[in-house]
Amino acid sequence: MLKIVYIGARGGHSKEINEATRGDKRFVCCGVAAGDADEDIKVYYGYIVKDHPEAKLYEDYLEMLDIEKPNVAVVSPKFGDTAKVCIECAKRGIHIMTEKPVATTRDDLTILKETVKENNVHLMAMHFLHYTGPYYEAICAVRQGKIGEVRMVNAQKSYKLYQRDDFYKKRESYGGTIPWVGVHALDWIYAIINKPCVKVSACQSTVGNNGHGDLETTCLCQYIFEEEVMASLQIDYLRPDFASTHSDDRLRIVGTKGVLEVREGKLHCITESVDTVTIPETKKDLVLEFLEEVLGGTKGELRPEDIFAVTELALAAQEAADNGGIVCF
Amino acid sequence: MLKIVYIGARGGHSKEINEATRGDKRFVCCGVAAGDADEDIKVYYGYIVKDHPEAKLYEDYLEMLDIEKPNVAVVSPKFGDTAKVCIECAKRGIHIMTEKPVATTRDDLTILKETVKENNVHLMAMHFLHYTGPYYEAICAVRQGKIGEVRMVNAQKSYKLYQRDDFYKKRESYGGTIPWVGVHALDWIYAIINKPCVKVSACQSTVGNNGHGDLETTCLCQYIFEEEVMASLQIDYLRPDFASTHSDDRLRIVGTKGVLEVREGKLHCITESVDTVTIPETKKDLVLEFLEEVLGGTKGELRPEDIFAVTELALAAQEAADNGGIVCF
Repeated sequence: MLKIVYIGARGGHSKEINEATRGDKRFVCCGVAAGDADEDIKVYYGYIVKDHPEAKLYEDYLEMLDIEKPNVAVVSPKFGDTAKVCIECAKRGIHIMTEKPVATTRDDLTILKETVKENNVHLMAMHFLHYTGPYYEAICAVRQGKIGEVRMVNAQKSYKLYQRDDFYKKRESYGGTIPWVGVHALDWIYAIINKPCVKVSACQSTVGNNGHGDLETTCLCQYIFEEEVMASLQIDYLRPDFASTHSDDRLRIVGTKGVLEVREGKLHCITESVDTVTIPETKKDLVLEFLEEVLGGTKGELRPEDIFAVTELALAAQEAADNGGIVCF
Repeated sequence: MLKIVYIGARGGHSKEINEATRGDKRFVCCGVAAGDADEDIKVYYGYIVKDHPEAKLYEDYLEMLDIEKPNVAVVSPKFGDTAKVCIECAKRGIHIMTEKPVATTRDDLTILKETVKENNVHLMAMHFLHYTGPYYEAICAVRQGKIGEVRMVNAQKSYKLYQRDDFYKKRESYGGTIPWVGVHALDWIYAIINKPCVKVSACQSTVGNNGHGDLETTCLCQYIFEEEVMASLQIDYLRPDFASTHSDDRLRIVGTKGVLEVREGKLHCITESVDTVTIPETKKDLVLEFLEEVLGGTKGELRPEDIFAVTELALAAQEAADNGGIVCF
C-alpha cells in the first residue's frame, strides 16, 4: 500500500492524482497541507477527505512529511516554490508527482536533479499533454518512422488569460510563461527530436497582460538541436475570452518523408502510405505509470531525466529571453 | 505608351507582367534578353513575340537597354544577379519590376536603394502574395483595428522541392532560402506589424535537400520589432511530392482583441464582432498598380521602401543564420 500526501493545489491538476487512484485499495491519502503560507487549502482538503476520511489536514507540510512518512507526495505550491518542496520530499526519500515546471530557475533544477539522484526517489511531473491522444499518436508515428528523419518541429500554446491569482503576477512566485505554459510543448519537442539541444534564442513580452504584472503574454523560442534539427515554439495568453475553447495548441512535425500536424485536437498526416499509426494497446496514463513504478511494477516510459531535460529547455529559453540573447547548452 | 523589356525569366513569374498588359495599347514590349550567359531565353522570347511581334531578341541585356531605351524593365536573372541588373536599369533611369528578392546581399541592397533614389526611378518587386486574397484581407483587417494592437505574428512557408535548376544549388546564384522563399512571409509580417525591427535570430539547414547543394531545406527566423512586437517564420522545402498542393502557407496574427489566421487559402477570424472585413472595392493588382504609377497615375500602395525594408528583414535573418547569432538593426 502506498501512502500519499498532497502539498498545495495551486496548479489545479492535483485532483487528477486522486481521480486516478479513487477506489483503488493500494493507495491511501494520509495528509493534506498548503504549499505556502498564503494558500487556503481547506477546499482541497474537503475534496480529498470525501474519498479519504483518514486524511489529516496539516498546517506545515514539513511536519506532515515527518509525521506521516508518506511514500508519495503530490506537489503543487506556488510555481516558484515547486523545486524547494520537491527537494524537501526527495531528501526524505519520498517519491514525487509534481506540478510542472519542476523548477523555475536553472540553479534550483540542478539541486533538484542531484537530490533526486542521491536519494534514489522517483519523480514525475504533470506533463499530462505527453500522453494526450493526438500528441502521443504523433510521437508514436515519429518513432515508427512514418515521416522519415525529423528535421523541424513547430509548436504552439495559446491560452485564455482570464483573471488569474495574484501569485501569477510576480516572476518569483509564477516562474514565467515559457516554463509554465511552454513546458508542455517542449515535452513534445523533446520526445520527438530526441537529441541533445545545442542552443536556444527566445523573446517575451508582458504587453497586453491586463494588469498581470510580470506575466509574459507573448513568447517565442527557437531551438537548434544536434544534426541541425530545429524547433520553434510560439506561446500566447491572448486567446480571446469569446473563443470556443480555452486553448489552441498546435504541433507540426516536418520529416524527410512526411509531415504530421496536430490541430483542433486531431492528428493530420501527410505520409506516403495510408496505413495508420500503431498506438500501444494499453492506454497510457501518466499517473498510473508513475504509481506502478513506485509500487515496484513496470518501469514507466517517461523518465525523470526526460522531465529534467524538458525543464532545462524551458529555463534556458527564459534565460535567453530575459537577457535578449542566445543560451548555449 | 510605355516600352517594356524583359531581362531573364528565371523566376517563372515574368509572364504575369505580359498577362496583365496583354491587349492594352498603352504597353508595348520592344525586347527580350537573357539575364545571364547560361540562360536559354528563346522559349520565353517565343512566348512574348506572340503578343508583341515587334519585340527583338537581344544577346546582351545592356545593349538592349541602350538601344531600346525602355521605360520599364522586367528583371528576372539568376537570383544572385537581380540587384546587379536592377542597378544597371536604375542607372539608366529605367523603372523596374523585378523578381524577388531585389538583392541577395546587404551590400547589394544598399547600393540598389541608393541608385534607385538618385535616379528617381520607380521599383517594385514581384511580392505577389501581398495582394493575394486572404493575406490581403488579413492585412486590411489589422489596419481596420479588428484585432486591436498586434502583438505577435507567426508565418509559415512550406514548399515542395522537386528537382530544381542547377543555379538553385549555389548560394551565389540562388541567394538562399530565407530570401527566396521567406520574403513573401516577411512582406506580410512587415505590412502587419508596421514598425521598425530591432533584431532577428535565425537558423537554417541544408540536410535533406536531395542533392541541391547549398539550398537550405529548413529555416527558422525570430524577429523583435519596436514595442516588443514579435514575429516568427518557419520555412521548409520538405512538403511531400504527394501532398495535394505545392505549398502550405500560413499566417497567424495575434492581437490584443482577436486572432486572425490564414490556412488552406482562407481567412479565419476570432474577433468579437461578427462584421466582416472591409476589403477595398478595387481588386488590387501589383503589376497594374506599378504600371499606373509609372504612367503618372495613382501612386501605388506598396512602396519601393517597403520592398527594401522587407528584403532587409530577409537578408538580416540569413546573416544571423549564417553566423549562428543575432543581427541587430
